[in-house]
Amino acid sequence: MKSVAVLLANGFEEGEALLVVDIIRRAGIQAHTISLKDKIVDGSHGIRIEADALFSDAVYSYDMVVLPGGLPGATNLRDDERVIKLLQDFNNKKKWIAAICAAPIVLAKAGVSDQKYITSYPAEDFKSVFDTSLYKEEPVVVDGNIVTSRGPATTFAFAYQLIECLGFSSEELKEGMLYNYMMKQS
Amino acid sequence: MKSVAVLLANGFEEGEALLVVDIIRRAGIQAHTISLKDKIVDGSHGIRIEADALFSDAVYSYDMVVLPGGLPGATNLRDDERVIKLLQDFNNKKKWIAAICAAPIVLAKAGVSDQKYITSYPAEDFKSVFDTSLYKEEPVVVDGNIVTSRGPATTFAFAYQLIECLGFSSEELKEGMLYNYMMKQS
Repeated sequence: MKSVAVLLANGFEEGEALLVVDIIRRAGIQAHTISLKDKIVDGSHGIRIEADALFSDAVYSYDMVVLPGGLPGATNLRDDERVIKLLQDFNNKKKWIAAICAAPIVLAKAGVSDQKYITSYPAEDFKSVFDTSLYKEEPVVVDGNIVTSRGPATTFAFAYQLIECLGFSSEELKEGMLYNYMMKQS
Repeated sequence: MKSVAVLLANGFEEGEALLVVDIIRRAGIQAHTISLKDKIVDGSHGIRIEADALFSDAVYSYDMVVLPGGLPGATNLRDDERVIKLLQDFNNKKKWIAAICAAPIVLAKAGVSDQKYITSYPAEDFKSVFDTSLYKEEPVVVDGNIVTSRGPATTFAFAYQLIECLGFSSEELKEGMLYNYMMKQS
């Protein structure tokens, strides 16, 4: 069974983190929230969730790691050496690494986004850590084993892409969750 | 200060409930998650969150009550007499009542959606409790003090509408959360 670890540091963006877990589980894929510190984690808008597990070597066995945005969630992830080492290990093994909103800065710090097409939240602070010629203004960007996305409202598209990357179809979910319906409204 | 109570029963849809809290708080409006039972509440996809408060008479003082979908979350709300009484009290005072996805069935049970335009998740089980001539196939429907919406992917539009109902602008959030950007992609 495919498994996804969603890393949570205090200050994580609740919508980005929890919609990804929600949507991935709907596809029948195992998704666990992994806290860097305590079992209860504080989101950037004051929502407190109980993580499924604390960070440990067990995280190295997952098929995909997902980094949600939010501040200071994303900087807390970036400044944790355990996260950087994990990303480098995943990258060496060509395993999936995904980040949204502010979190692509963690990939830059780990060096796993070098020479890859990438996106992030469109603020200068985040864009400036990437090579301009490889930065894309698209909702979701996949390059090899690296998947990046832009912000709260791109989370549905991001999560559906992660399901596809893991070899499953997201079409039924896009229909059932009214994503196709909603995208036709604009 | 305006205040919003988001009622949580076990089996609530995490994305719908928590995105609403997240977005409403971004607008500077007070939003509290209120659990019908225990301090820790189980979402319909296994996410466990710590509610801000347990249900009590204090909920009668809020300006708006929001009912997220999810099963059995929505049926748990519907079958709780405290919720039905609260909705009837809010409705008598013309205070805001909002429900998304499966949760409009709770409004029907309380009788507060009678003679109102309404929407819900587009499944027969939910649609059939409403008067066909008043049922609308729109992402968000506002009629008087009643606001209804359809499913996970309509949650952003629903939350922005709730902010507007409370007298605030959602334009800056739609821009900053990349909602306008995303809706231009289709």
